[in-house]
Amino acid sequence: MKKANKKTNSAIIVIGDEILSGRTQDINVSFLSKWLNELGVKVSEVRIIEDKEKSIISCIRELKNKFKYVFTTGGIGPTHDDITSKSVAKAFKLKYGFHKEAYDILEKYYKPGEFNKGRKKMAKIPEGALLIYNPSSGAPGFIVENVFCLPGVPSILQSMVGGLKNKIIGGNKILNKTISIQTVESEISISLANIQKRFKNVKIGSYPFFRLGKIGVSIVVRSIDKNKIDECCKQIISFINKKKIQIIKR
Amino acid sequence: MKKANKKTNSAIIVIGDEILSGRTQDINVSFLSKWLNELGVKVSEVRIIEDKEKSIISCIRELKNKFKYVFTTGGIGPTHDDITSKSVAKAFKLKYGFHKEAYDILEKYYKPGEFNKGRKKMAKIPEGALLIYNPSSGAPGFIVENVFCLPGVPSILQSMVGGLKNKIIGGNKILNKTISIQTVESEISISLANIQKRFKNVKIGSYPFFRLGKIGVSIVVRSIDKNKIDECCKQIISFINKKKIQIIKR
Repeated sequence: MKKANKKTNSAIIVIGDEILSGRTQDINVSFLSKWLNELGVKVSEVRIIEDKEKSIISCIRELKNKFKYVFTTGGIGPTHDDITSKSVAKAFKLKYGFHKEAYDILEKYYKPGEFNKGRKKMAKIPEGALLIYNPSSGAPGFIVENVFCLPGVPSILQSMVGGLKNKIIGGNKILNKTISIQTVESEISISLANIQKRFKNVKIGSYPFFRLGKIGVSIVVRSIDKNKIDECCKQIISFINKKKIQIIKR
Repeated sequence: MKKANKKTNSAIIVIGDEILSGRTQDINVSFLSKWLNELGVKVSEVRIIEDKEKSIISCIRELKNKFKYVFTTGGIGPTHDDITSKSVAKAFKLKYGFHKEAYDILEKYYKPGEFNKGRKKMAKIPEGALLIYNPSSGAPGFIVENVFCLPGVPSILQSMVGGLKNKIIGGNKILNKTISIQTVESEISISLANIQKRFKNVKIGSYPFFRLGKIGVSIVVRSIDKNKIDECCKQIISFINKKKIQIIKR
């Protein structure tokens, strides 16, 4: 079995009072996690923090050293509460000012006379940062070292990640198989724990669900080794059949 | 103006590989944030971490000292991947074993003969912990010092928080008003920043939206002082009217 590249991990920093207040439901974390997993990058931690310069700076400084990639979402727009660019500049001790390429992109994007002071703020980016192009609304994100700064609006964020693929070197992709069965967790917990003990490089997750009036458990088997997943699932199916539990989906 | 109780803050720790993998969309954070805000407790940070004992222990040790209240979600079920109780015990250097009250509750909850080994695991809780009762599925959560451990299944979590109100002493409630207008952020950013400068104890957030085919911005004004919010909103409405921007909702 190929050894997993342990260093291909990442963290996401969600910058946003609106998420912490419960006003807005974050959906960027699940999008980015799935997208990164496809590239062979595991998301190991997520932090949701306030729109406060001090918090952003300390969070970035801590996580950029801990993980191979760090992604931030939110706070790169034109308003006074968008302070991500300035804070990232401070975190890396870089100058913060007009970025020529970003300025040119935005100047071309807007009609003559419309490139106002508010919009110009979006051209202020840490010195030397690489741009992340924005096919939906002009204003770019940017990369400083291993920190990738993306916007908070999900549709714009999603339109921007396509251009990042060649900037991210993934490790082994984590594969998974799900077996959904009609039972409760406590009926299967001991058998499942015994199977887990037999498989070192496989992680078995057990997730109860209550949907469409049905109570059940989804058993998710994760590994970078497809054969190990298959072998593990075989053992799970075998004890499920023995216990005469109905399989809903596999 | 009454000074805000700065210490009435909190953090949420979401324990769950299934959230980090993107497989499951977390909805507990927004529920808990809104619920805590009603009690006058601000959520200042959220961390989503892996189902790993080491990560859970270090996260709890760090945040319990940093915030007045810490809430964990997930990992208190009967399966092998539910390791929150054991990890919290280790974080506080407490014994981990059968908790008499929890054991009695679960023994009564299940029919004779059904209180199996898997279910008994849910009665294992850090020594001396206070229980959080569970009206939907028996298995309790628990409190150790300022750390409140709740389950991950949203419907069960939501049914349990009702019993916590008298265990949480809130500060001043953060009030808010929202004005939604039909424009883009960059048309209002300078005026908004100028108003923000005039109001020290008010936080103005600006959130673009794209829904129902409409592009707009929601301006959210937050403070513990209702009068300050009203005064601030008046100034916002005034410049919006001057700019002849359509108000969608206020």
